[in-house]
Amino acid sequence: MKRKLILDVDTGIDDAIGIILAVKSREFDLLGITTVNGNVSLDQATDNTLKVLDLLGETNLSVIKGADAPLIRPHFFEHGVHGEDGLGGELKDILPSRPAEEGFAPDFIINSILNFPHEVTLVMTGPLTNLALAIKKCPQIVHYVKEVIFMGGVVKGPGNVTPTAEFNMVVDPEAVKIVLHAGFTDITQVGLDVTRHAILKEAHIHAIENPVIRQYIDNSTAQYRKRYFKRNGVDGCAMHDPLAVAVAIDQSLVKTEDFYVDVETRSELCDGQLVCDFQNRLEQDRNLSVCTEVDEAAFLRLFHSIVSS
Amino acid sequence: MKRKLILDVDTGIDDAIGIILAVKSREFDLLGITTVNGNVSLDQATDNTLKVLDLLGETNLSVIKGADAPLIRPHFFEHGVHGEDGLGGELKDILPSRPAEEGFAPDFIINSILNFPHEVTLVMTGPLTNLALAIKKCPQIVHYVKEVIFMGGVVKGPGNVTPTAEFNMVVDPEAVKIVLHAGFTDITQVGLDVTRHAILKEAHIHAIENPVIRQYIDNSTAQYRKRYFKRNGVDGCAMHDPLAVAVAIDQSLVKTEDFYVDVETRSELCDGQLVCDFQNRLEQDRNLSVCTEVDEAAFLRLFHSIVSS
Amino acid sequence: MKRKLILDVDTGIDDAIGIILAVKSREFDLLGITTVNGNVSLDQATDNTLKVLDLLGETNLSVIKGADAPLIRPHFFEHGVHGEDGLGGELKDILPSRPAEEGFAPDFIINSILNFPHEVTLVMTGPLTNLALAIKKCPQIVHYVKEVIFMGGVVKGPGNVTPTAEFNMVVDPEAVKIVLHAGFTDITQVGLDVTRHAILKEAHIHAIENPVIRQYIDNSTAQYRKRYFKRNGVDGCAMHDPLAVAVAIDQSLVKTEDFYVDVETRSELCDGQLVCDFQNRLEQDRNLSVCTEVDEAAFLRLFHSIVSS
Amino acid sequence: MKRKLILDVDTGIDDAIGIILAVKSREFDLLGITTVNGNVSLDQATDNTLKVLDLLGETNLSVIKGADAPLIRPHFFEHGVHGEDGLGGELKDILPSRPAEEGFAPDFIINSILNFPHEVTLVMTGPLTNLALAIKKCPQIVHYVKEVIFMGGVVKGPGNVTPTAEFNMVVDPEAVKIVLHAGFTDITQVGLDVTRHAILKEAHIHAIENPVIRQYIDNSTAQYRKRYFKRNGVDGCAMHDPLAVAVAIDQSLVKTEDFYVDVETRSELCDGQLVCDFQNRLEQDRNLSVCTEVDEAAFLRLFHSIVSS
Repeated sequence: MKRKLILDVDTGIDDAIGIILAVKSREFDLLGITTVNGNVSLDQATDNTLKVLDLLGETNLSVIKGADAPLIRPHFFEHGVHGEDGLGGELKDILPSRPAEEGFAPDFIINSILNFPHEVTLVMTGPLTNLALAIKKCPQIVHYVKEVIFMGGVVKGPGNVTPTAEFNMVVDPEAVKIVLHAGFTDITQVGLDVTRHAILKEAHIHAIENPVIRQYIDNSTAQYRKRYFKRNGVDGCAMHDPLAVAVAIDQSLVKTEDFYVDVETRSELCDGQLVCDFQNRLEQDRNLSVCTEVDEAAFLRLFHSIVSS
Repeated sequence: MKRKLILDVDTGIDDAIGIILAVKSREFDLLGITTVNGNVSLDQATDNTLKVLDLLGETNLSVIKGADAPLIRPHFFEHGVHGEDGLGGELKDILPSRPAEEGFAPDFIINSILNFPHEVTLVMTGPLTNLALAIKKCPQIVHYVKEVIFMGGVVKGPGNVTPTAEFNMVVDPEAVKIVLHAGFTDITQVGLDVTRHAILKEAHIHAIENPVIRQYIDNSTAQYRKRYFKRNGVDGCAMHDPLAVAVAIDQSLVKTEDFYVDVETRSELCDGQLVCDFQNRLEQDRNLSVCTEVDEAAFLRLFHSIVSS
Repeated sequence: MKRKLILDVDTGIDDAIGIILAVKSREFDLLGITTVNGNVSLDQATDNTLKVLDLLGETNLSVIKGADAPLIRPHFFEHGVHGEDGLGGELKDILPSRPAEEGFAPDFIINSILNFPHEVTLVMTGPLTNLALAIKKCPQIVHYVKEVIFMGGVVKGPGNVTPTAEFNMVVDPEAVKIVLHAGFTDITQVGLDVTRHAILKEAHIHAIENPVIRQYIDNSTAQYRKRYFKRNGVDGCAMHDPLAVAVAIDQSLVKTEDFYVDVETRSELCDGQLVCDFQNRLEQDRNLSVCTEVDEAAFLRLFHSIVSS
Repeated sequence: MKRKLILDVDTGIDDAIGIILAVKSREFDLLGITTVNGNVSLDQATDNTLKVLDLLGETNLSVIKGADAPLIRPHFFEHGVHGEDGLGGELKDILPSRPAEEGFAPDFIINSILNFPHEVTLVMTGPLTNLALAIKKCPQIVHYVKEVIFMGGVVKGPGNVTPTAEFNMVVDPEAVKIVLHAGFTDITQVGLDVTRHAILKEAHIHAIENPVIRQYIDNSTAQYRKRYFKRNGVDGCAMHDPLAVAVAIDQSLVKTEDFYVDVETRSELCDGQLVCDFQNRLEQDRNLSVCTEVDEAAFLRLFHSIVSS
């Protein structure tokens, strides 16, 4: 039996590739894709999601809109990386074939979990606002979800927005606070610690056998890879969000370790920083499974096999 | 035509009297009462609400449960004032005749506002968590609600929990932040500045003609009044929440002035403090109508006429 | 025997009038005037002090420079009120007749207190940086000073920089923290609560009999009074700093009450706010004598009698 | 010509070994040792310093007391690691042969730097309170000191007090703020990143040829090593403070890199954390030379050669 999945996205460039992975993989019964404000506005993220599904011919999959802003902070978009449209300009002039469904993402998440107790995997690749709102409405979901995997944060290296914080955590730290302290028993963080070592290079893209997907990924990541090249001297791009989906497919791609992790919400300098208590100095129970290593080659093999089909 | 009202409560002693006012007044078409964690737990607040309605013979009025905790903070109950059960021990040994309805308070608030655009008055006498969650789900309600009146905060005098903050604001300052910045055009704060001058004294209670209500209020406020007597030398108690309901009935009971008001959420010392920019030093648009004076005699007359009926 | 006084100033317009009061009064053995960064830079405050002393013919009085910046924050000048030079343009083109003495204000304060145990009154009319540094070097001074009177803060009304905070407190809240918790047994705050009711009007200025002082005050306050007129419809100006000096001369000008008072240092919204625990909710020992009322007429009489001599 | 050194210490176990290194090395003209509140109280730190100097026969070296508390925070001692007396019980029953000299450490630091411009090396192995106070009194010292080396903080791994912060930084984060932003051009941080890799093991202690020093180090570190053994399975102890002294002797022991570094002072969770902007995201000028690697073998050789003499 396929595993039931909800994918929650703020569809920028790498969320889109995560969607492709989730859809093309034969692992999942994909219950729906929920959208959230993040890299781009809620409306843009929703349109981008629908367009990517159109590209894949998935015109029946449920797409449900969620929070259009962080819990208590203003918007904080990232057009520098993802372009004005969020998909690096690719698909910019196309309209989605349909609107999102009626409904509110947190409600969809709650209902799905309660309808299929202990069966639903949540993969979150944007800010955690939707999950936080679901928890506030129905705290019991933490006992009925199968597992949560979220892309975000970093526990050892530098952040990608501030010196210590990653984008998804910076956008809505209060949502992260709610999620980390909600009492999930199977929740995994896929942070920059590992996603920075999941690099899709030009050659990997050219090797994709499905021509539509190859061309889409090639074009949509072109600016992103140029930017990456300037910083790192490599024509490639980090597969932040796709790795979260890949971990949902095959947890053996990463090594994980459980820690107590909190998030900073009250500091100008460190807001959004994940504070991982490696040495248990705060004497709190472990609340997060942290990815500490990734088998990049295995990830790229999995990626290739899925997107080429 | 009667005005449509939703009353949101964390039913402690004075919320209960507010419920009595709202029900007995002939002003309102009371759509429902929503409950929230605050003075007591969500379950206790809900039971207390149902019991008070039983006392009034109102066994058909919708009661819907909302948030069982503040947005990102732990519970912060106030059993010192309201007693273990929240109603000063009165009704402690009675069970409510029915459970709450299915549903979630923020959804009930949203649906009511959208179903009756520009007709619904919201009176909030607990922490603002339910309204904040409604706003996060459906930001448009700020344009379709008729008015919001909330009891909470203080802009000139001392707080009642910390030196500068009032209980409802302290419990969930992040919810207050969301509400204050949501863009409501008709929102009134009924704070300690005025509720401290709406004192129900022993004589007023004894003058209530309806014997059931007289006895209930007399007994449930007994400890509360004793406490008040110790501090102030008067056998009375401040009608914090009832005044908010009364202002909904007759706005002329209070003088109001519009200011830009923000709330402190990032300080140990001042969390929950309302910061009222009397002199417009922050150069922000006015976002709150603040009650600055109350006509206590008129309030007590209104109170008497309603509860005696 | 005259009381020994040290006056600590960040000489802007009203500090200057405070200096005039302190010098012309026959109450004090003025040990020295110490200067501090605040309304203007340390160098400007020092020059302004020396020029005002020249005007008064006081060319031997010790003037000693102190801290040139707040403890951990950047400068925060107030040229809007005090003009580019800090004295409303008056004396702008004059050079002081002498430089400041060698030495560092906190050391001068410490040595004076230790040399004259229980005899020295400190009047602070700028940010409290110098006193804070003195305390850090020699905590024992709190036991050997006679009394401390500082102008700053507000406990009931609005601030004059932010909605809740007064200038001297905003400039260096960490210094205020040190002073409030140092253990002084006789320390009085002269805040906006009273200084806003010590208004020097045009007529009072014209009534000054000493022509040099009359003309100086008239000219230096001209812009200040124009500003005040715009806000308040009165040709006058608040005697913030002079009132602190006047309270040192005659404590009966004000009513005071003792409270526990802390200062906010960790909030963007409220930094520099004095938090006065009127109802002892924090259950801390009282650490500050707060001026709650001023006899304005008596102040103005005292003022007149001193400056006219 | 020997280099002029001031060593600033809060003498616990490893500060004491740092003192031994500094005294026994032939590299320095040791101008004096200044003491500060930290691991233990100022008085205890001073006594411990004097006792260690007695042990070494250094009865003429200037020892000057500094700050007896952090700038604005309460004391935060570390008796768990250093024992009640701060030296692991060794020397507990001995009295120092002399008191500290008159004077105040920050003044001693200022005067030394101004007397020997561009010649004085400061090595700080406790909280940075004394240096911060010196800067506040005489900001020009940043231009006249030769170099500053301080032990404290961590930029990549976990802290040793909180998940992200090291002891010396936690004790007085405001002092760190002052030091980091003072404008020093040659300032080096020796943090846990390197001191955790400078482990003195039992065998190294037994190899010390000077019997007095061997026995003192063996005994004073006994508990410390037992603690270390429990955590790490090795009979050894990290030479935090001695490494800072060793870096002053021979900078080639470490690799350093320059970064912009700030310190958190406004968060409960992260106070005292050094925030190292590895990727220059804040676009600030580099203000700190950070030790990123240490040649442990070379350090231990240097250590052996000095203490054995």
